[in-house]
Amino acid sequence: MSSPVIILVRPQLVENIGTAARAMLNCGLIQLRLVAPRDPWPLASPQKERITAAASGADAVLENARLFSTTAEAVADLHAVYATTARGRDMVKPVLTPRAAIAEMAQGRETGGKTGILFGPERTGLTNEDLICAGKIITIPANPGFSSFNLAQGVLVLAYEWLMSQSEAPRESLPLGKTRPASKEELFNFFGHLEDALDEGGFFTTPGMKPAMSQNLRNIFSRASLTEQEVRTLHGVVSSLAGAKKRKNA
Amino acid sequence: MSSPVIILVRPQLVENIGTAARAMLNCGLIQLRLVAPRDPWPLASPQKERITAAASGADAVLENARLFSTTAEAVADLHAVYATTARGRDMVKPVLTPRAAIAEMAQGRETGGKTGILFGPERTGLTNEDLICAGKIITIPANPGFSSFNLAQGVLVLAYEWLMSQSEAPRESLPLGKTRPASKEELFNFFGHLEDALDEGGFFTTPGMKPAMSQNLRNIFSRASLTEQEVRTLHGVVSSLAGAKKRKNA
Repeated sequence: MSSPVIILVRPQLVENIGTAARAMLNCGLIQLRLVAPRDPWPLASPQKERITAAASGADAVLENARLFSTTAEAVADLHAVYATTARGRDMVKPVLTPRAAIAEMAQGRETGGKTGILFGPERTGLTNEDLICAGKIITIPANPGFSSFNLAQGVLVLAYEWLMSQSEAPRESLPLGKTRPASKEELFNFFGHLEDALDEGGFFTTPGMKPAMSQNLRNIFSRASLTEQEVRTLHGVVSSLAGAKKRKNA
Repeated sequence: MSSPVIILVRPQLVENIGTAARAMLNCGLIQLRLVAPRDPWPLASPQKERITAAASGADAVLENARLFSTTAEAVADLHAVYATTARGRDMVKPVLTPRAAIAEMAQGRETGGKTGILFGPERTGLTNEDLICAGKIITIPANPGFSSFNLAQGVLVLAYEWLMSQSEAPRESLPLGKTRPASKEELFNFFGHLEDALDEGGFFTTPGMKPAMSQNLRNIFSRASLTEQEVRTLHGVVSSLAGAKKRKNA
């Protein structure tokens, strides 16, 4: 399954092209196509410097970008093309969320080949002539009162959905670096140390309160997913506090 | 369930603050907090003009932004704080994807109150002192060779996940505007018209090929989810082509 091609149609600002390239590479997309960009391509100074700053290291995406005169030429070798647009159009085409569209592309469902995503110029968006080149529409279900995304931000949304469709990152993890989780035995030893020190210091004012209070304390520390190192630190804290109290009372 | 607060810690470039505000409003987030921004706040010229251009209409988010001197002050009234960072840290904290973190915030699971998301300065990211203010880490599972997101792009990823967590937009729809789907009867009438015209024009060179070929043609048009208007257009196309052929053969 090849990753989708990002196609910027008549982009106006080189900063947006550069930031879009950065967003693409962040998300593992590398195929960029430009249809009739406002500034002549390849860029000369000062546009060259401005796009390099915006791309922030994603130069390879820009260097490999392919230039086309028309949208029809830019999509000619693709098998499924999606057009991003915020506004409702007169054309009857299926409208998908970014997530649904990327799921289709990632699964090869209804595409089975090379896919591309069209993005229109900053102010005007894609024309009906551009939309004819696409089989389906992608619309971000944005705030209806403020639905127009910056061009590079629109590219990021699609690139990010692609990234997530390919990612095997766990939803949640607890990286431990050089340490390891405390064993239950280490945890129980600490509980014993803590409760002995509290006993000695007169924390349990009645014998009846000890079981319930101990349970509360054990719950606090059990919930914290302590590491072996943190348990050793806590031993030190208890010893230090108990020692300070002893010295004070001495 | 209140929406998360976006907290930019020591942001350097007003363009990024403005673009972040635009991304927030696109996605229905309105609470922005700034911790010790580089340029004195509220902004004077020319920063004022630059941020307004970048915000592109999201002025209300900027006007309501709250200013703080330290990260600790900025999170003091929140109940669950998440810190975005790309780099692994020495601290032992749960690391979540943006989607998992937003799901927690949206469901109120483990938060049950006001939530906030910390974003660090452009070049350096959050310090360990900032990270202490957060219970969990959010990391976008990005391209490992190019994992540093532009600040406003990072804000967009989280804001977009919030948008999607709140959105009831169908994954796919087919908006029809003023027209309506063709009824099956209208579709069958068109099939009849087409096949009669093909019969008359000698398209079916052997009687045996008609059933299979008709089935193929009907599949093509059935798959297209035609509207009533499109069926009328297709009737016209068939009449026109058949008429042209009759005239040509006359």
